[in-house]
Amino acid sequence: MFRSAVIKIRNNNLFEIIVAVIIVISALNIGLSTYENISTSTLEIIKYLDYVITIFFLIEIIIRMTADESLFKFFKSGWNIFDLIVLTVSLIPAESLDSALIFRVVRLFRVLRLISIFPQFRILIEALIKAIPRVGSVILFMFVNFYMFAALGSIFFAEIDPLHWGNIGLSMLTLFQTVTLEGWPDLMYDAFDYNPYSWIFFVVFIILNSLIFMNMIVGVIIDIIVKENNPELPDNIKLLNEINSKLDNIFLKKE
Amino acid sequence: MFRSAVIKIRNNNLFEIIVAVIIVISALNIGLSTYENISTSTLEIIKYLDYVITIFFLIEIIIRMTADESLFKFFKSGWNIFDLIVLTVSLIPAESLDSALIFRVVRLFRVLRLISIFPQFRILIEALIKAIPRVGSVILFMFVNFYMFAALGSIFFAEIDPLHWGNIGLSMLTLFQTVTLEGWPDLMYDAFDYNPYSWIFFVVFIILNSLIFMNMIVGVIIDIIVKENNPELPDNIKLLNEINSKLDNIFLKKE
Amino acid sequence: MFRSAVIKIRNNNLFEIIVAVIIVISALNIGLSTYENISTSTLEIIKYLDYVITIFFLIEIIIRMTADESLFKFFKSGWNIFDLIVLTVSLIPAESLDSALIFRVVRLFRVLRLISIFPQFRILIEALIKAIPRVGSVILFMFVNFYMFAALGSIFFAEIDPLHWGNIGLSMLTLFQTVTLEGWPDLMYDAFDYNPYSWIFFVVFIILNSLIFMNMIVGVIIDIIVKENNPELPDNIKLLNEINSKLDNIFLKKE
Amino acid sequence: MFRSAVIKIRNNNLFEIIVAVIIVISALNIGLSTYENISTSTLEIIKYLDYVITIFFLIEIIIRMTADESLFKFFKSGWNIFDLIVLTVSLIPAESLDSALIFRVVRLFRVLRLISIFPQFRILIEALIKAIPRVGSVILFMFVNFYMFAALGSIFFAEIDPLHWGNIGLSMLTLFQTVTLEGWPDLMYDAFDYNPYSWIFFVVFIILNSLIFMNMIVGVIIDIIVKENNPELPDNIKLLNEINSKLDNIFLKKE
Repeated sequence: MFRSAVIKIRNNNLFEIIVAVIIVISALNIGLSTYENISTSTLEIIKYLDYVITIFFLIEIIIRMTADESLFKFFKSGWNIFDLIVLTVSLIPAESLDSALIFRVVRLFRVLRLISIFPQFRILIEALIKAIPRVGSVILFMFVNFYMFAALGSIFFAEIDPLHWGNIGLSMLTLFQTVTLEGWPDLMYDAFDYNPYSWIFFVVFIILNSLIFMNMIVGVIIDIIVKENNPELPDNIKLLNEINSKLDNIFLKKE
Repeated sequence: MFRSAVIKIRNNNLFEIIVAVIIVISALNIGLSTYENISTSTLEIIKYLDYVITIFFLIEIIIRMTADESLFKFFKSGWNIFDLIVLTVSLIPAESLDSALIFRVVRLFRVLRLISIFPQFRILIEALIKAIPRVGSVILFMFVNFYMFAALGSIFFAEIDPLHWGNIGLSMLTLFQTVTLEGWPDLMYDAFDYNPYSWIFFVVFIILNSLIFMNMIVGVIIDIIVKENNPELPDNIKLLNEINSKLDNIFLKKE
Repeated sequence: MFRSAVIKIRNNNLFEIIVAVIIVISALNIGLSTYENISTSTLEIIKYLDYVITIFFLIEIIIRMTADESLFKFFKSGWNIFDLIVLTVSLIPAESLDSALIFRVVRLFRVLRLISIFPQFRILIEALIKAIPRVGSVILFMFVNFYMFAALGSIFFAEIDPLHWGNIGLSMLTLFQTVTLEGWPDLMYDAFDYNPYSWIFFVVFIILNSLIFMNMIVGVIIDIIVKENNPELPDNIKLLNEINSKLDNIFLKKE
Repeated sequence: MFRSAVIKIRNNNLFEIIVAVIIVISALNIGLSTYENISTSTLEIIKYLDYVITIFFLIEIIIRMTADESLFKFFKSGWNIFDLIVLTVSLIPAESLDSALIFRVVRLFRVLRLISIFPQFRILIEALIKAIPRVGSVILFMFVNFYMFAALGSIFFAEIDPLHWGNIGLSMLTLFQTVTLEGWPDLMYDAFDYNPYSWIFFVVFIILNSLIFMNMIVGVIIDIIVKENNPELPDNIKLLNEINSKLDNIFLKKE
């Protein structure tokens, strides 16, 4: 009887709305606390709101856990595990953290639930995760590509511009900057005085990566279009084949 | 009889052209007044032209309103309401405005009619408005995404660079700048001295948003292609099914 | 008989190749003359090469003109008119030009023939020209959009930053710079001290234009895909309808 | 018998994995050596690892060469030739090289084998190479386009800004920078003081190249979509035609 009441609560639309509103308030709360010129009384309110929100979330997840058929089923959904981790992290008491910075980051964690509560956002995240294998080998290839050019950049430019090319880590960061096309001419002209052929490095790198990007985007579009059409096309052909064989039947009987 | 004359005027192509020309003149007028080295006599002409144009627009909208079957039908079109608002705003007398700045902005409002007068522009605007629900949840997701990273940015960098990360509002603006890939290495290197891991924040944010953008664009393209094909495909299959059932009929009669 | 010889020359592949080679030499010639540290003897050679090339082009166009069936047919092709204009401009004697600068620009004109001589380049140019009506109304809309924002920008920022927003012409150039996302944060922060809401202007402008661009690109892709499919689809349906009516015939006869 | 053992080794999955691991170690090795604060003992280890890796690669390629049916078949694959060249270059003894710089570049060469060992990377590279003819004429056209604008830029701006427009080579590099939209307003404003119409050069160049890029991307997408659909469509129509002719047969027999 208690369980059926809990299930009733979980399936209630109002419950969903209240949870969403609480998360939004929690997010606004965090945003508000970044403004420095707020009074101490407001800070107190923010602090107490924080406690209330955490407790509310705890109750909410217990309700959903109880309402589910079994704990096993509850944990089968990746989103439930996500919610539980987020809650657990936000339950860490502030006193046990060595710095206020980590405390504030932990508090921000709670807003991540904004993503799990709205179905549209879940779909988006799932679409992004589904896209990873599709672009996965391209991203790995990009990494190898970056690594090689970074090693080359370190060899060529480490002595001229150690801030940007000092080691392979810095070089990869600099190449990421180059791939976003931000400030690359400055990098090139810095190396220009030392080696008049340094432009080849940058121009080849940019053109190569543009081609890889273009290939990736075109690939993804094609991939989805071909997949989208697939479920329809076989039906079409299946029907045609069926008609064809029926005609054969008619035709043969006539002979 | 008066009404039929009004309808005649409204449907006249010449009337349309005159309205368009007047709007273009009004736009050129505003453009001209931004050049400082213009004589006071020209300023006077611009001022009088302004009055004439406003009165002309007033007459034009009255004609269209009278020509329509009923006021109800007139107000059913969003574009008519748009025209009326634009006219109402541009009728505000200059004396009642506290600053010349607002007066000039109000005058600019009138040029917005350039959009409602040309059917092609209406189509474009309607296409843009229609695209909003399609990209709506992505934009909302983007906002949540921005908000979370902005809070994180405020926590990490507020003390190092208060101009860019001072509060969550400034942080979101700075992240918008980062997403346009403009000047983000400067922001990163400013934070670099303080925290050697600050690059993770920027690199993750840029890659994540690129993926979301790519997903959105691909999604829109796929969405439209699938929709464009839909009206044709069912017909195709309907016809095939029809043929199939007819063959069944023939086949069955033979048995 | 003379004409048939001329036609033979025109249709000769070798003739085509020689013309292409001459144009490439002419282009290299112009490129070479931009290097300052070249000897006067080289300059003399360049100058004489120039004469030879011009005369060669004159002969080439006369051959093609004579070889064509009629002058009318010759002038019907836009590319022939293009060639003739390019040649005429490059025939202007250097002495009649008031500056060396114009002379060099006129000489460069000749290289434009590189575009008309290669069929692939003609196809590309024709594709670009064909794409204009498709994106035409978007470009016009963009212009109106730029004009309105430029007027607004002039009203708001002319006094703070006259170099960028002094009049509507400068404002439109600044907005073009903003739309390429280059250096727009500097423009915004310059205006920030004066008006804390200036960011709205930039953020709205950038998002609006991104949406318009996205709409345009998606529109062009959809447009072409739908058009590409069109020639095939009616055939398909026509065939299906034909089959359907035949079945009806069979079916009716049986009754 | 020796050969069958070799073939067994080559086809062994473990062999593939060992080769991949060795290449990754080799890559990490190179990355590590870009960090300056490494002890001499680590440097010694890196040096000896280098020898071991080179010898391992030599053995690996001999195994694959022996395992193949014939040397002719081995050399028919472009990837085998690629591996052999990479190995040959990395076998050059360090003493014969005049500088440490070239030695380090040569060593980096070996990591290129990361591309040939993973099938996914081979597919990507092959896709990129296959895309070249498709975008080939556009790239050539772009080059001509760049060349012409570079000549024009040299003529106009060489005296104002010799660093960027001094000769046609520098001009082309500057135009490449402009096409990546990086720092072009600075270039324009530098030329602005000298010639108030210099903005036309930049605006026309940027818009023209954006259109060419858009055309290229759209072209590639369309090209692939049309090609992807082709194998399916003829089948469809072929089946329909077959059905149609069968119906004709039935119909004619009835007459």
